[in-house]
Amino acid sequence: MKLYDSVRAPNPRRVRIFLAEKGIEVPRVMVDLASFEHRSDEFTKLNPFRRTPTLELDDGTVITESVAISRYFEEIYPEPPLFGRSPLEKARIEMWNRRVELGFMTEVQAVFRHGHPGMATHEIPQVNEWAEANKAKMMASLRLINDQLGEVPFIAGETYSIADITLLCAVDFMKPTKIKVPEDHTHLWRWYEDVNARPSAKA
Amino acid sequence: MKLYDSVRAPNPRRVRIFLAEKGIEVPRVMVDLASFEHRSDEFTKLNPFRRTPTLELDDGTVITESVAISRYFEEIYPEPPLFGRSPLEKARIEMWNRRVELGFMTEVQAVFRHGHPGMATHEIPQVNEWAEANKAKMMASLRLINDQLGEVPFIAGETYSIADITLLCAVDFMKPTKIKVPEDHTHLWRWYEDVNARPSAKA
Repeated sequence: MKLYDSVRAPNPRRVRIFLAEKGIEVPRVMVDLASFEHRSDEFTKLNPFRRTPTLELDDGTVITESVAISRYFEEIYPEPPLFGRSPLEKARIEMWNRRVELGFMTEVQAVFRHGHPGMATHEIPQVNEWAEANKAKMMASLRLINDQLGEVPFIAGETYSIADITLLCAVDFMKPTKIKVPEDHTHLWRWYEDVNARPSAKA
Repeated sequence: MKLYDSVRAPNPRRVRIFLAEKGIEVPRVMVDLASFEHRSDEFTKLNPFRRTPTLELDDGTVITESVAISRYFEEIYPEPPLFGRSPLEKARIEMWNRRVELGFMTEVQAVFRHGHPGMATHEIPQVNEWAEANKAKMMASLRLINDQLGEVPFIAGETYSIADITLLCAVDFMKPTKIKVPEDHTHLWRWYEDVNARPSAKA
């Protein structure tokens, strides 16, 4: 088994944290996004969608997409469960993972990829107006997330889950956008300190 | 149990097709997106993210997000499985569901929401340049999807799954963009005829 991994990008980090929480070690192959190694013929053959993370099993089967790779490991190493146990818990974690990923995280990425001059060769065409539009969306999503964290210790409820991993990676990915989590989002800050103190956060 | 549902939008349809495939009937409450009923105080209380579909359980618990609602039903009514059985099958279906949804479907929605004059009061700000940028992305994604359908009968492999539901709703949602699936995407057309002939497609 081999995990094709990349530095700095938020999606590969989601899988690294997931594996660290499970205590699983997987041999890694680093793919350099900055020099477009993920767009090489060799990598395109492995994953035609040209993204990391990508997992290659010993028989050559390829699984891509951070959440799909995480689910594969959840199925073969169920403890500790990071996708929930009961039907309702599973649904609630999936709901929050999606709310964070399809809303907030996607908005953070749009602000960065369409706004940062260094991304002009990666994101073609770069649409600055789209980056601007996403700044307000991102802050509105963050407020709803802060509200939720005023109700429960973790984003999807009483226990740490994959949705917290997604949120941590998304919040940390605000850094290159140079926009900060507002001081008055006290619930989010409380949560951030808790989750960021876990050893897995260094993955 | 009550399902808050809306006409025409692709995400509520995903849940309707999922329920039809499972043979589950759930009482529905129609929410009119055109008159912004999903942004009313009452609905915002139910789902602060203001989206349909939204599922309300008898004890008042609310589950939102089409895939999270579908997973809840998969857990309580496992047959026929639409998220897969083995760890690998589950991972592959999740991978394809995400590739279709986060890529192709998101691109189709961007073309429509940011390009159609009728959406100018829904999508604020409407960024026409973003709609234009997504036309090429959408067609590139569609080609990769066509390639995959040349290898296997259904998008995630040998069996019909939630990923086919997502793809069907996304392809049908190309209609308001006035862009058609190219004639030479013969694998996609073959798949479309198969999947669209299932009774669930009318849901």
